[in-house]
Amino acid sequence: MKKIITALLLTSSLAANATSAEFTAKQLQQVDEVRSAALKSPLSYELLESLTTEVGPRLPGTENDKKAVAWAKARFNELGFDKVWLEEATFPEWRRYSESGKILTPSEQPLHLTALGNSISTPKEGVTGSVVLFETLDELIAAPANSLKGKIAYINYRMNRNIDGNGYGPAVKARATGAIEAAKKGAIAYMMRSVSTAHHRFAHTGGSYYKEGVKKIPNVTIANPDADQIARLVALNKAVSVNINVQAQSLGEGIGYNVIGQFNGTENPEQYVLIGGHLDSWDLGTGALDDGAGVALTMAAAKHISDVKRPKRSIRVVLFAAEELGLWGAKAYFAKHKNDLHNIVAAAESDFGADVVYGFESNVDAASLPVVRAIAKELAPLNVEYIGKNQANGGPDLIPFKNAVSAPIFELAQDGTDYFDYHHTADDTLDKVTPAKLRQNTAAYAVFALMAADAKTTIKPKAATK
Amino acid sequence: MKKIITALLLTSSLAANATSAEFTAKQLQQVDEVRSAALKSPLSYELLESLTTEVGPRLPGTENDKKAVAWAKARFNELGFDKVWLEEATFPEWRRYSESGKILTPSEQPLHLTALGNSISTPKEGVTGSVVLFETLDELIAAPANSLKGKIAYINYRMNRNIDGNGYGPAVKARATGAIEAAKKGAIAYMMRSVSTAHHRFAHTGGSYYKEGVKKIPNVTIANPDADQIARLVALNKAVSVNINVQAQSLGEGIGYNVIGQFNGTENPEQYVLIGGHLDSWDLGTGALDDGAGVALTMAAAKHISDVKRPKRSIRVVLFAAEELGLWGAKAYFAKHKNDLHNIVAAAESDFGADVVYGFESNVDAASLPVVRAIAKELAPLNVEYIGKNQANGGPDLIPFKNAVSAPIFELAQDGTDYFDYHHTADDTLDKVTPAKLRQNTAAYAVFALMAADAKTTIKPKAATK
Repeated sequence: MKKIITALLLTSSLAANATSAEFTAKQLQQVDEVRSAALKSPLSYELLESLTTEVGPRLPGTENDKKAVAWAKARFNELGFDKVWLEEATFPEWRRYSESGKILTPSEQPLHLTALGNSISTPKEGVTGSVVLFETLDELIAAPANSLKGKIAYINYRMNRNIDGNGYGPAVKARATGAIEAAKKGAIAYMMRSVSTAHHRFAHTGGSYYKEGVKKIPNVTIANPDADQIARLVALNKAVSVNINVQAQSLGEGIGYNVIGQFNGTENPEQYVLIGGHLDSWDLGTGALDDGAGVALTMAAAKHISDVKRPKRSIRVVLFAAEELGLWGAKAYFAKHKNDLHNIVAAAESDFGADVVYGFESNVDAASLPVVRAIAKELAPLNVEYIGKNQANGGPDLIPFKNAVSAPIFELAQDGTDYFDYHHTADDTLDKVTPAKLRQNTAAYAVFALMAADAKTTIKPKAATK
Repeated sequence: MKKIITALLLTSSLAANATSAEFTAKQLQQVDEVRSAALKSPLSYELLESLTTEVGPRLPGTENDKKAVAWAKARFNELGFDKVWLEEATFPEWRRYSESGKILTPSEQPLHLTALGNSISTPKEGVTGSVVLFETLDELIAAPANSLKGKIAYINYRMNRNIDGNGYGPAVKARATGAIEAAKKGAIAYMMRSVSTAHHRFAHTGGSYYKEGVKKIPNVTIANPDADQIARLVALNKAVSVNINVQAQSLGEGIGYNVIGQFNGTENPEQYVLIGGHLDSWDLGTGALDDGAGVALTMAAAKHISDVKRPKRSIRVVLFAAEELGLWGAKAYFAKHKNDLHNIVAAAESDFGADVVYGFESNVDAASLPVVRAIAKELAPLNVEYIGKNQANGGPDLIPFKNAVSAPIFELAQDGTDYFDYHHTADDTLDKVTPAKLRQNTAAYAVFALMAADAKTTIKPKAATK
């Protein structure tokens, strides 16, 4: 917190003296104004509080999802965006109705579990079976054919804690495809340790998939303390049987909306900086970290810019639909704008919670690097370090754009040390967000978006290799 | 942690030089041996791991409660206690079958709640009503007659965090009697913010009561993040309605057992030091902090003493039954031993989690204070401070003894700063216990019990005033 306050004090003195080939002294003064205003403003927190309190969870296709779309549209208008519109996105709709579990032997006790998105239901009375423990997905894949007949496959892999969340990738494989591999061996249900760094009794949900031709089986995760308990029982050579009860349903194709607000540029309004987050969330928590924060802080960042000026190019805030079910809003946006993606001069998504931004990274054409460095210089007073490898990944909704090398991708890297304590759980609620940290994020996005939109040089993506 | 390790290193040098009118140099050498062994031994953690893993939750009257009694008896025998026996205790049996809740307006979202012990059920479809918020129990008591007709009364009071848990008392009043006061005003259900210091989405259960002649209404607590959400919605002037669904049952009189193990004294075996905890737990977690830790560490402390010597007086470990439902095991013990309570030379219960012991306090006759000070001196190397007001309260199961001034009461005060983050929740699980801290507790109990049992002077209670 101290660092942020120091940054605030340094801001005026630093920025006023800086100038570059890309920005005039006046422009840099405006950057300073925007940064200072964002660091002081309660706006992003107020937006987040409103979304998570008045709407709450926002599973795609639900009544709350529709309320969130209406909320976002109304807020864009209230904030004075020049253009506000919706773009349709379809997705495979799914609902969780109820879920519960228990360890039956050697001693009955509750099992804190949650169904993975897309899971089928168990029978009404649940599914009961003995647990076969694997430490990794690879171990499960290596199990003999039919060796899990009538059993419940369980993967005990625990993700590591890291500032950049790099423990997520290795753990999430088992979430995406574990049920398929378990079913191939004859398992009647699939259970895994949550993709989680927490020591709390929340199971973490997330996306999962079935495969044509492989039997669909119920697909759940359990909380870390429950996973520890199962592992201890197995280590004691106890026969562990559990009952899993999930009532859920796939509802076919659902319809949602990317909600988009834009402040128009003064010189090249067709060109734009794209910032945003995803408006949907899982159903368990209120989606404060994932991704209410990204929604609120990018809306607020654009508003803070507009209070000072309209830059040369437009600032477009895109609130993507149905990210959690498989980036459906992002795919729809990408498809719809296929022929004008070259208008995107910079794209950054905030979708990694609400802890401070510590790093800034680009993924752009070499000729654009001077602008990037000029932006990095103005992020430094916010304690944001320039990473400088020019290999930004961007947020999940930017994957289609990055894969196609069709937009300059940026990343404002957040401290994700604690993010996977809350991610996709009931515990992702507003109290996990520190207002001062959210303000620092807002200021970083505001500085980045303003400068990318107002630079002399138009930022370009790396040349596509295909 | 460092402090504990330092304590371990200091132990030998300090103790060997000390001597007093109460203890010979040889006795103090034995105290040192016991302390050192307890600080190194995995025994208390192993016992705790076994109880919470192999038995799990231990609600009085359940199958698991019976398993816990069998577990404790078997462990006492395995540890070589001279005498192991059971003493019956009855209690009002109660079961939780299911519980759930949701906020219905202005937007549907899950409400994390738990029934308080003794709560009646709602109808099958739950009870639905609009929420009337009171900041305190006193505010509810001051509400006009009939003003809550058809409503759900809600108390928003939040407990404070303190090392000695002194925020619990003011908060727990609303838990014990809130449903009675709400029913008097016509409320159809009673809901309160959990007695909790946590920022996690667990509701905290606990004991509650009804009153003859006042309608029984369903009685629940909600998690702190949910309480914050309700308070925000009320502050927004939103009409907040909720649905509460609790299925629970009172089953009449249940039977349980205090499980008792004793190492016999060599000179006055009828006199004894009483240490222990309560064997039962709430049903939500595995009762690691409340009170598996107290059970495990007092069993282990007695065992460590016995490995070095049998002191003059006996060491009796009492694992009380049905504490959570109203100290039923303690009351039964008190009644059964009414005529020989004078044989208790010191009593201390560990029932406040597993964080370090920081203070030592007595409640004894003035003539016994030299022994107390000699014990305090041997606790100092464990970083335990002598409080010295001679006003110890002791653990909950010692309340009958303290109220009757019929036993010398001791308190090994634990750091309870985080205790109410987990207390009475599903999150009270083994991973919340730090082995090194549990060892420090074990060593403190071992030093205390050995010295109280082996002192020249027989410790006496304060003279009863009645």
